Formats: sequence, C-alpha cells, structure tokens
Amino acid sequence: MSKFENVTVLKEASVYFDGKVTSRTVIFPDGSKKTLGIMMPGEYEFGTDMAENMEMQSGDVEVLLPGETEWKAIPNGSSFDVPANSKFGIKVHAIADYCCSYIPA
Amino acid sequence: MSKFENVTVLKEASVYFDGKVTSRTVIFPDGSKKTLGIMMPGEYEFGTDMAENMEMQSGDVEVLLPGETEWKAIPNGSSFDVPANSKFGIKVHAIADYCCSYIPA
Repeated sequence: MSKFENVTVLKEASVYFDGKVTSRTVIFPDGSKKTLGIMMPGEYEFGTDMAENMEMQSGDVEVLLPGETEWKAIPNGSSFDVPANSKFGIKVHAIADYCCSYIPA
Repeated sequence: MSKFENVTVLKEASVYFDGKVTSRTVIFPDGSKKTLGIMMPGEYEFGTDMAENMEMQSGDVEVLLPGETEWKAIPNGSSFDVPANSKFGIKVHAIADYCCSYIPA
C-alpha cells in the first residue's frame, strides 16, 4: 500500500459540512502539505487558497471545475487540478477517499 | 496543535460501517501504530486484536466496555482502554475525532 514516510501528521482532524467531509493534514520534509480526506455522499462547493491537485483513491465523484459548465466524472486513480483562489463543485455518489496536494505559487 | 513527527502514514483510508467510521494509519519510528479516525453519529461494535487505548479528541460518545453493564460517557481529552481480543460498544451522539493507540502484548 502506498505510504508517506518521514512526515508530520496533525493529530486533530479538519471537519467540514457537519463532518460529511473530514481530512488529516500531512506535512512533508520540504514543508509541502497534503490532506488525506473522506467525503460522504453529498454535493459540496469548496474554495481554494492555494492551487490544489485532488487525487481520487476510491469512491464515485463528479466535479464542476472553475469556468466549466459540465460536470465531469473523475475515475479512481486519477486526479484533477484546481487553480488558486477559485471554487469548484463536487458531487459524491459513493464515499470518496482522496489525497489533496497543495501546490505553492 | 498536537502533531506526530517523523512518522509514516498510509495513503489509503480504512473504512468501516459504510464509511460512518474511517481512519488513517500512522506508524511510528519504533514500529508502534496509531489510527486517527472519525466516527459519524451512530452505534457501533468493534472487536480488538491488540489492546487499544482510545483517546477522544472531540465529539460526544458513550462506551460499553467488556464485562461492563453500564454505558459510560467519555469526556473529550480523556481515553479508555480496551483489552486485546475483546469487543466494545460505542454510541456516537456527535461526530467524534479519535486517536487509537495499539498496545503491544
């Protein structure tokens, strides 16, 4: 199984949407950050500060990316990019396990 | 915020009870293991292999420990111990963020 070594993990969870979305923060030796998260079924809108790469590990989701008008399915094992300071929509049809990488400007 | 440094984190989540309970596995330099998890409201029964210490970081839970007949509230910031090869019940009244430490025999 894929793993992250020599990292720092924050003990407390981040909790959004009444717990339907939760994540754990992982800090890498170079200072970069990823979150490992779970999204329960539902529809959500997220805003970004930094640019993000969202990798879907399992689940069934569609996303509406900034500037797009069509929802797009994201197969497991693939990812999508979201620009900094933007918003995206996500429909979670089956519980999703994701890894979000924050991309420094 | 409390954090675990110089650890290994498994990238994939552990998912139980249709995703109402999920956790991330953290391995320490000495080989010991903790899981950081979220429990959505509900009632669950868990079985243990190793002995466990369950620390509640947030939420509102009651537990029924092996051999006990009364449910007991676990205040946030406190923990309870579960013997190896046993079962315990937990009622989650508000989404719970926990840290489970596995205790070698």
